[in-house]
Amino acid sequence: MSEDIKARHGYTVRYLADLAGGTVVGDDSQIITGVNRIESARPGEMTFLSNAKFVKFLPLTHASCIIVQSSLASGEGAEGRTMIVSDDAYRCFVRVMQLFFPPLRMERGLRHASASIHPSSTVHESAAIGPGCVISEGCVVGECAQLFANVVLYPGTRIGDNTVVHAQVTCGPGTHIGARCIIHPGAVIGADGFGFLENPDGSYDKIPHVGIVEIGDDVEIGSNTAIDRAAVGKTVIGNGVKLDNLVHIAHGVSIGEHTAMAAQTGISGSARIGSRNRFGGQVGMVGHIETADGVIIEAQSGVSKPLTTPGAYLGSPAKEHRTALRMEAALRQLPRLLQEVRELQRVVEESKDNAS
Amino acid sequence: MSEDIKARHGYTVRYLADLAGGTVVGDDSQIITGVNRIESARPGEMTFLSNAKFVKFLPLTHASCIIVQSSLASGEGAEGRTMIVSDDAYRCFVRVMQLFFPPLRMERGLRHASASIHPSSTVHESAAIGPGCVISEGCVVGECAQLFANVVLYPGTRIGDNTVVHAQVTCGPGTHIGARCIIHPGAVIGADGFGFLENPDGSYDKIPHVGIVEIGDDVEIGSNTAIDRAAVGKTVIGNGVKLDNLVHIAHGVSIGEHTAMAAQTGISGSARIGSRNRFGGQVGMVGHIETADGVIIEAQSGVSKPLTTPGAYLGSPAKEHRTALRMEAALRQLPRLLQEVRELQRVVEESKDNAS
Amino acid sequence: MSEDIKARHGYTVRYLADLAGGTVVGDDSQIITGVNRIESARPGEMTFLSNAKFVKFLPLTHASCIIVQSSLASGEGAEGRTMIVSDDAYRCFVRVMQLFFPPLRMERGLRHASASIHPSSTVHESAAIGPGCVISEGCVVGECAQLFANVVLYPGTRIGDNTVVHAQVTCGPGTHIGARCIIHPGAVIGADGFGFLENPDGSYDKIPHVGIVEIGDDVEIGSNTAIDRAAVGKTVIGNGVKLDNLVHIAHGVSIGEHTAMAAQTGISGSARIGSRNRFGGQVGMVGHIETADGVIIEAQSGVSKPLTTPGAYLGSPAKEHRTALRMEAALRQLPRLLQEVRELQRVVEESKDNAS
Repeated sequence: MSEDIKARHGYTVRYLADLAGGTVVGDDSQIITGVNRIESARPGEMTFLSNAKFVKFLPLTHASCIIVQSSLASGEGAEGRTMIVSDDAYRCFVRVMQLFFPPLRMERGLRHASASIHPSSTVHESAAIGPGCVISEGCVVGECAQLFANVVLYPGTRIGDNTVVHAQVTCGPGTHIGARCIIHPGAVIGADGFGFLENPDGSYDKIPHVGIVEIGDDVEIGSNTAIDRAAVGKTVIGNGVKLDNLVHIAHGVSIGEHTAMAAQTGISGSARIGSRNRFGGQVGMVGHIETADGVIIEAQSGVSKPLTTPGAYLGSPAKEHRTALRMEAALRQLPRLLQEVRELQRVVEESKDNAS
Repeated sequence: MSEDIKARHGYTVRYLADLAGGTVVGDDSQIITGVNRIESARPGEMTFLSNAKFVKFLPLTHASCIIVQSSLASGEGAEGRTMIVSDDAYRCFVRVMQLFFPPLRMERGLRHASASIHPSSTVHESAAIGPGCVISEGCVVGECAQLFANVVLYPGTRIGDNTVVHAQVTCGPGTHIGARCIIHPGAVIGADGFGFLENPDGSYDKIPHVGIVEIGDDVEIGSNTAIDRAAVGKTVIGNGVKLDNLVHIAHGVSIGEHTAMAAQTGISGSARIGSRNRFGGQVGMVGHIETADGVIIEAQSGVSKPLTTPGAYLGSPAKEHRTALRMEAALRQLPRLLQEVRELQRVVEESKDNAS
Repeated sequence: MSEDIKARHGYTVRYLADLAGGTVVGDDSQIITGVNRIESARPGEMTFLSNAKFVKFLPLTHASCIIVQSSLASGEGAEGRTMIVSDDAYRCFVRVMQLFFPPLRMERGLRHASASIHPSSTVHESAAIGPGCVISEGCVVGECAQLFANVVLYPGTRIGDNTVVHAQVTCGPGTHIGARCIIHPGAVIGADGFGFLENPDGSYDKIPHVGIVEIGDDVEIGSNTAIDRAAVGKTVIGNGVKLDNLVHIAHGVSIGEHTAMAAQTGISGSARIGSRNRFGGQVGMVGHIETADGVIIEAQSGVSKPLTTPGAYLGSPAKEHRTALRMEAALRQLPRLLQEVRELQRVVEESKDNAS
């Protein structure tokens, strides 16, 4: 953590322990004014120790308080320290981080002079609308929502309370975004899906897209990710879903709650993803199939059939994790196997010759 | 189709049948004011039946007219109905949809006050220029073209008649886009290609890119797709081409008419793609090779050699569809094959021992 | 090269030879006013010949001067020509191209009326700020930097001298970009990484991202590429790095000098890439591993383990180039191998039967 990341407030160890959820050992009235790595922390700062690899720094750190994994709390250098002891020290530290480094926010109620807000739209007085934003007819922007620079809302978009829409995001007609979401720069939500009817001469007729994208609460969407509106009905992104950068979600897909997808994954039309799935990066999935809840797809896999059983899958086409690993191991032996079979053929041929 | 998708006009069944191309059975003077799913349609609405799975709804629907696949037109509940009978009911329905749900358009002739239009550019009086658009020197924007919010045209860009450019699109210097195209939000057309000369110390010299991107008529380009300008000459996207979201087209590529590429596919420099090709999602293709007309590349394939014969290809590296499936099937048997060969080796060894 | 690419200046052959680094044969006082392909060049223009395939045009070209690969300089038609002879004719020609086609630049010192520049920012008087740009608190924009239309700089961004930031680019809080960089349209640099803690109920807590992205000098970043800020510390893009379009670089990654990555490649969190690596398109790499200097990863590969030896790697999971090719070749023989083993089994079984 660099020197320029400074605390803006001071808090007592007691306050931070209550917030973070650990047990205080030592002086809970100390004032903490910042956080830092264990090897760099100075007096007045808090640090954390959750990994045995860093236990050597415990006697050396200048931190005024250490959030310590309970299994490491009695190591050398712990004695006399002010500590917050926890079974999940990293999570406790993250909560303290969230306090010391609140996300960037524009001024409450900002209406930048260069923003275009259609008079038929309803923007909550507490919402902030940054420079160059375009809010079209019939949009609704909720309480304390933040639209950073150059965001474009097509007609009928609804942005929920406390949702943050970063620069250069586009929301297509009728997009609904829930509360407490974060949409990163350049994401495109609610453009037309890729749907055509082929004509006998090979040309295509466009299928009109009159559906919408509906995004639940507490969703995070990565930079330059694209989520298409349904032809008819809804593309649904469930509560708590997290999508990384450059992800593609086609028209009519539905994604269950708390599913996470890493960067550059692509989901084809009308696929139905279960809850609490985890997709690695660059995964592809064909349309009109589904996954159960609790499915894990490893990076670069290709899902071409429904996955109705929770568990981990791998490969293109995707197989159960164990099967895929066995196939990969066998594949590594294949060049040698070829030689061995040639040798066997020779031996068998010889023995036939000898026998005749 | 949700309740809030309402018709804006009423049309007679006769008018719609002439438009959609089917044969009317029943009262062709009925007025249709909207469209809906067969199970949800109300009096005054039109629906369609193209899939035998939904034939059970035929006796039940409240629709005033049904576009019916000819093979299903004499089923239970058909009698006494007003129907438009067709050999391609879904296509007919799409045409009716196109009528009832015309795409979103800005006001004809709009020049939003926040747009910057260079005086040396020629923008047709009927074209609409949305808020925050930037039209640089020497651009030409055609009749009834629509530039939604924050579109940036670099110098010398030409946008054809009736073409729609959605929010946050960038067109690099000299880009030509034909008529009736749709460019979805965030697409970048005509930025420099990825071309460098390596120096002896490992650093790179940039190869100047002075070519352009030329896009034909009736092309659709997906959200956040990137199409690079040629170093010299043109990157060519043929008439009727459809590219999905997050596609990458490198410098100097040419794509034949009516070729379609699904999301996240990437084509390397100077590749030449034939007409009426279909690429699945996440396909990669190396540079300086070509495909014949009528080639189909399945999702996640990697094309590393020219494909001179029409047909379907699969895998990385891509093989003929049948070959790839046979290899995949064999691969699944490989772990067992390994065991069987070990067993054979044992048997052969034993018989040799016995023979000696 | 099309007719509309015209030279803006005239230069003597001597001047161009000194610039490009070759040896003049013939009249070095001739004035060159443009460049063109060998088959299209007219008097007054310069062309080049580096590939034996085009040697047939040497007697025919109307060019006033030809940059010729030394091995081709005594071919038919060379006699009496004004030539610049070089061991690297294409590189020489590129240098001449760079002279004749300088990159597009806005007017020095431009402050477009529609740009929003926070008074706490420092923009060098020579820098050009295009329409719709947003420069937030505490930014620094260097000498002769160019920000094309609708660029958004979040607070604390620094743009180095002579760096060009193209339209619709977003730089997140605290991003540092060095000198002479080119950032292509739609790139997102410095948004939050994809980091969460899973809660027992499957929901996620966001890990605050307080680090930055630091980009060196002479870096080029492709269209719609996304580079995330570190959770803590820095995501580092070394001097001279070249990233193509739609690349994903996760939080905390570091990339060594002069490494190049082709389009749609994705690098997971905290990976450390060496110097002078070359990644093909659509490569994926897992987090927290590293590559040595001088590693080459071929297109569509998946890097799942550290690569500590320079050389070429291929496949998913990535293997040494030679191993991967041998496995692919063996795989092609697998369907036949299966049949051969079946045949062997039959023969061995028969000989056992005969023996008993």
